Amino acid sequence: MNIRFSNRALRLKKSAIRNKLFDNPEIITFAAGKPEQSIFPIDKLLPLAEQIIKENGKNAFQYSSSEGLPKLRELIVSQRMKACHVDTTADNIALTSGSQEGIEIAAKIFVNEGDTIICERPSYTGAFGAFAPYDPKYVTIPMDENGMKMDDLENALKENKNVKMIYTIPDSQNPTGITMSDERRQRLAELAAQYCVPVIEDSPYGDLIYEGERHPAVKSFDKEGWVIMLGSFSKTFCPGLRLGWVCADESILEKFVLAKQSSSLQCGTFDQYLAAAFLTQNSLEDHIDEIRNIYRVRRDTTLECIKEYFPKEIKYTKPSGGFFVWLELKEDIDTAELVLEAAKDSKVVFIPGKYFFAHEDYDNFLRLSYSFVNEEQIREGLRRLGELLHKKY
Amino acid sequence: MNIRFSNRALRLKKSAIRNKLFDNPEIITFAAGKPEQSIFPIDKLLPLAEQIIKENGKNAFQYSSSEGLPKLRELIVSQRMKACHVDTTADNIALTSGSQEGIEIAAKIFVNEGDTIICERPSYTGAFGAFAPYDPKYVTIPMDENGMKMDDLENALKENKNVKMIYTIPDSQNPTGITMSDERRQRLAELAAQYCVPVIEDSPYGDLIYEGERHPAVKSFDKEGWVIMLGSFSKTFCPGLRLGWVCADESILEKFVLAKQSSSLQCGTFDQYLAAAFLTQNSLEDHIDEIRNIYRVRRDTTLECIKEYFPKEIKYTKPSGGFFVWLELKEDIDTAELVLEAAKDSKVVFIPGKYFFAHEDYDNFLRLSYSFVNEEQIREGLRRLGELLHKKY
Repeated sequence: MNIRFSNRALRLKKSAIRNKLFDNPEIITFAAGKPEQSIFPIDKLLPLAEQIIKENGKNAFQYSSSEGLPKLRELIVSQRMKACHVDTTADNIALTSGSQEGIEIAAKIFVNEGDTIICERPSYTGAFGAFAPYDPKYVTIPMDENGMKMDDLENALKENKNVKMIYTIPDSQNPTGITMSDERRQRLAELAAQYCVPVIEDSPYGDLIYEGERHPAVKSFDKEGWVIMLGSFSKTFCPGLRLGWVCADESILEKFVLAKQSSSLQCGTFDQYLAAAFLTQNSLEDHIDEIRNIYRVRRDTTLECIKEYFPKEIKYTKPSGGFFVWLELKEDIDTAELVLEAAKDSKVVFIPGKYFFAHEDYDNFLRLSYSFVNEEQIREGLRRLGELLHKKY
Repeated sequence: MNIRFSNRALRLKKSAIRNKLFDNPEIITFAAGKPEQSIFPIDKLLPLAEQIIKENGKNAFQYSSSEGLPKLRELIVSQRMKACHVDTTADNIALTSGSQEGIEIAAKIFVNEGDTIICERPSYTGAFGAFAPYDPKYVTIPMDENGMKMDDLENALKENKNVKMIYTIPDSQNPTGITMSDERRQRLAELAAQYCVPVIEDSPYGDLIYEGERHPAVKSFDKEGWVIMLGSFSKTFCPGLRLGWVCADESILEKFVLAKQSSSLQCGTFDQYLAAAFLTQNSLEDHIDEIRNIYRVRRDTTLECIKEYFPKEIKYTKPSGGFFVWLELKEDIDTAELVLEAAKDSKVVFIPGKYFFAHEDYDNFLRLSYSFVNEEQIREGLRRLGELLHKKY
């Protein structure tokens, strides 16, 4: 069979994260960006599921709107959007299948072949996967401990035509764990309006901050509607429900809804009922407080073990939230080779850094995720990885 | 705000079906292609949901694979694919968010701008909506009571270059209700192989046949892998679960999975557990038998009422299954205007036929759906619509 796929199809890439190498149960995995499932509020979901099926079963398994249930969109406004200081209404919210679907639709509705996407260097590999079929060019902006550098961003906006979006993960960024300062958030919103370029603010980790309060969203500084915020219940509640959302100006939101309508049509109806019931009858805030404590300890343990077990020359980030630490090894180490050695000899895996670069060739970075490993696994896994690393230094 | 959308975004269209005009509870709706929700097996779902949450809650709310749960894919093979004579394996099945997502991904992975899609005349409006962003040309093939005419199809395949797919709904077609004969199914599979053009066989209504047995799928006649079959639980089980599937050769299926991975990522995990439990512990066959009896009566009532209440000159199809009857009115009636009059004065709605044509201007057709109206509503609604129509004849 000589199948003639579209050019788009030839640009589809396998996910670096969803790799079967990482499924071996004997391996300690710092690869998965999965939440810890032992802390899902299963006991609280059981009576809610029973209640929904008994009292509203027929509607809960029927088609529902592409925008999403009004009740759930209102709860997102009054709880999640309020938590990041965004004053909005349910008319500015539409549901997506996690924030991933929002990322894909953003590229679909903004990017013609050869248009430019500005993003952080490095950035989320799954966004590159979603963007790839639409064949963008990338301009990447360096970061420091306060996030994307705004002077570099402004230069990029001045120098490049056909910039169709700025993609940013301001909270506990994937893969670096870096959180953008509030000053830069405000500046980013101003630059977006000044250069008339939409910002895609991807914020699945915004609530998972381990010191102080959640930062105000970039969207909270948005006066004209240039910021499109993507939220998700995948990291703070249950990813299997496939519930995320987009918050945008109505003229933009309409396109997101139409694009969803013509592809996945709508989010699961029962899943939406279940989330709405949980947000009404329980406190997601309390649940988030609880899981923050668990992830905080894992982050602390990870940073301690890196300090204790890894060669001192290795540079790494100290995230204030989220799931990830980003490490820079010495230049002659190729982490794509290292991970194979680590999996085979040390029974430990991570994601090689190269997948997080839009087009640059950096082989000596790696991402460690501490969300899906307990403290014992973190200690043992990083001790083993440290041993391997010491052989290279 | 002067937002620069992609060309793709400008081609996104509002669904003709998901129209708020149709949500007025005082109106009898022959518009919705929704299944009757009073027959959802809610009583059987309750203990299954309880069991899943109690015994397997943590996995059921966690991420799962983009292909879908192996167990559910195996059940689809042994039950649904067997029912339409397709001999396949779970490796050839991947889940989609209804068959709608399969339709959208097909266009994404096969169609470059300006490539040709061959489809029936008329065809499913939601497919045109999914295809539109990818800017195809259409060649449409007339149908008779045995479905798409194969001589016309062969001529179209001879005369047109860059035909990237043949989109067909062989079972109780949307909008005509016509079912393709087995001889033509075989011929279609042969032509696909001869001209090296993939067939997208969209079959959400295949199980809902009211006389005799389900027809063998076009896919069952496929020897080389040119036929890609889309199935769905939306019409025979529960649409709110958003579960459909694609059955294809592995080289093609891989692209579907990658495209899904980069957009909606995966189907809802709990939804998949629930469907797998129902297919294991209950009989979907028995459930389908039950709902067939209900829809058969609705079809019969609809056809009787058309005969009794409508002007004799009106031509209409006599479907052997599915949800739809397709009517041809006299040429000077514009059904897009008629539906507004019908909604206002007669409190009854349908879908104007023009939405089901790829590019032709036919204004005098309409689709009646009898799936979401009971016999009393059918009688009353069609009596009223008949009165209105008699004024036009």
